[in-house]
Amino acid sequence: MRTISVRLGGRRHPVLIGPNLLDRVGRLMAAREITGRALVITNPAVGGLYAERLRKSLDGAGIRNEWFEIPDGESYKNLTWCAKAHRAMARAGLDRGGTVVALGGGVVGDVGGFLAATYMRGVAAVQVPTSLIAQVDSSIGGKTGVNLPEGKNLVGAFHQPDLVVVDPLTLKTLPEREWVSGMAEVVKYGVIADESFFAFVEDALEKLRGLRPKALETAIETSCRIKGAIVERDERESGPRAILNFGHTFGHALETLTRYRRYTHGEAVGIGMAWAGRLSANLGQCGREDSRRLTGLLARVGLPVEAPRLNRRRFMEAVGRDKKVRAGRPRFVLMRALGRVSVYEDVPESALWESLRDGSGRPARG
Amino acid sequence: MRTISVRLGGRRHPVLIGPNLLDRVGRLMAAREITGRALVITNPAVGGLYAERLRKSLDGAGIRNEWFEIPDGESYKNLTWCAKAHRAMARAGLDRGGTVVALGGGVVGDVGGFLAATYMRGVAAVQVPTSLIAQVDSSIGGKTGVNLPEGKNLVGAFHQPDLVVVDPLTLKTLPEREWVSGMAEVVKYGVIADESFFAFVEDALEKLRGLRPKALETAIETSCRIKGAIVERDERESGPRAILNFGHTFGHALETLTRYRRYTHGEAVGIGMAWAGRLSANLGQCGREDSRRLTGLLARVGLPVEAPRLNRRRFMEAVGRDKKVRAGRPRFVLMRALGRVSVYEDVPESALWESLRDGSGRPARG
Repeated sequence: MRTISVRLGGRRHPVLIGPNLLDRVGRLMAAREITGRALVITNPAVGGLYAERLRKSLDGAGIRNEWFEIPDGESYKNLTWCAKAHRAMARAGLDRGGTVVALGGGVVGDVGGFLAATYMRGVAAVQVPTSLIAQVDSSIGGKTGVNLPEGKNLVGAFHQPDLVVVDPLTLKTLPEREWVSGMAEVVKYGVIADESFFAFVEDALEKLRGLRPKALETAIETSCRIKGAIVERDERESGPRAILNFGHTFGHALETLTRYRRYTHGEAVGIGMAWAGRLSANLGQCGREDSRRLTGLLARVGLPVEAPRLNRRRFMEAVGRDKKVRAGRPRFVLMRALGRVSVYEDVPESALWESLRDGSGRPARG
Repeated sequence: MRTISVRLGGRRHPVLIGPNLLDRVGRLMAAREITGRALVITNPAVGGLYAERLRKSLDGAGIRNEWFEIPDGESYKNLTWCAKAHRAMARAGLDRGGTVVALGGGVVGDVGGFLAATYMRGVAAVQVPTSLIAQVDSSIGGKTGVNLPEGKNLVGAFHQPDLVVVDPLTLKTLPEREWVSGMAEVVKYGVIADESFFAFVEDALEKLRGLRPKALETAIETSCRIKGAIVERDERESGPRAILNFGHTFGHALETLTRYRRYTHGEAVGIGMAWAGRLSANLGQCGREDSRRLTGLLARVGLPVEAPRLNRRRFMEAVGRDKKVRAGRPRFVLMRALGRVSVYEDVPESALWESLRDGSGRPARG
């Protein structure tokens, strides 16, 4: 078992990574005195595969547990479903010593975290991520929230989990498309923080695709360490944490414009990163070769790297409404080199649009 | 203008109290650099009386403002109306530098605070309370939230305002019943923290009823100071803050049992305090005379002090579901003397029930 300690929200919480940890969640919770009544939130797909093992583990540790299923998909990540789950928590008799356990991917984790943040003004949260994107990204950092029709993650709160348990073997049942999407974030960590990790992913890509345990655990652990370190420096996203949004400003816009239907989050971020790489090169912030190497790896992973045709006015509006905007000025994370990025505020509209067009009709220039 | 400084959430925010401050909200915000785009949340009754003055003040200070009305009443304090307001914020183009201004009573303040807590994971909040209960209680301390059908304030977050502006002259348009309800909290501050303030309220009651400015400002300022000092010692309600719940455990239960229809919050708390006083005397924690003096003042204010007939099982269930419960053990705040209270966990069920019956059929024994 690999252990990472993340210091956030005024205290430390562990991220535990290892095969078959799913069967030990109850004991791992009890060892940390997280023993109050629990609501486990999951979805039908994940619950069908793993609910029995987790239930057995919680029962074995004497943790009373009730279950709540949210339908599978980003479109259910909204306040209506939160309210249903909040009511289930009340009916299950959870008090302030209660716990929300989130068993599933990013949607379940984000909703579960928000439930923990807002039930009785805050109860304990345990994240048991089962998708790659949740294991390397969304379960670390305490961001929780839900969507509005007007945009993604517009409603939420910061709320750190008390424990994160990652069982990489759950990826065996992950649909291929979800694995590919999660890899977008893994690639991102190399781009923003560690050129050698980027190179590791280039080299180990086929091992990762084959879910070879050692490569997989290294990729998950390194990703969690990079994210944890960045978030520790900037829990509330006022400064350094912004670099985690590399590729995300446009990625979120793309998800909004296509109503969350066409792309997974990772696919949208893949396109967003390819766009951000081109934008960085077009503005002379990095070499053309860095941008090409990024796009090349994203394509090898299986991610889309070209944007669909978009209306310019709607594109600019959507990019401007992203919540990383402050006082009306959108900020963009640009690549200086693989492993190093910076935040820019004054990017000309024309450059934003032209970097998009490279990928939407004409051959991408890299 | 009287100024109180409250140190919460890692920073200080002012509570400003004075006649006609309503016309100066914009300038007071601008002086504190709260100048981002604002969503003002209010209700039709309060908006009809004061929206124009506040709008003029915000416009005059150059603060762009959009308005959102929530229907009047506790039953609209729910996630459905939050979602409507969240969407209005997004459509108004609020970003992370935006502000929620809450103009109204407790419902508007609680919802407005929750919107500020959860929009983009937290934006600025300005409270402009116009009811007595909001001026002396709910606008101080950062508790925000909404109700579930299963119970009051079960969903929420802690989120400190950046500024509280109290204009006592708005009480001139407050319905009598709302003034009476607000006085329940004013009386409470005397009971839990300051016998001389309790005596002041006894003496000045008719001046307060007549909205005589000096008495009113003293009552509001002292109430805010007491609440501020208690909350500063215990922002997250793990310990000392519990004393603010004197009369509230049963008050909340009563609101739930009567579906928020029969009593205002203050009326339910009035009954709850009279009950808590009798319970304290019945358990020998305080003298019978203290309990009688409390009940006497509550009755003079115009508050109900006798509980309706209740089914014992449902009563015990409702008291046990209050969110001040930890690990299944309800806690009760009991009076040791006027001005001094303590928290007790092991109160026998029979005493809870018998202190209730005193007031529900037979003549109250004080």
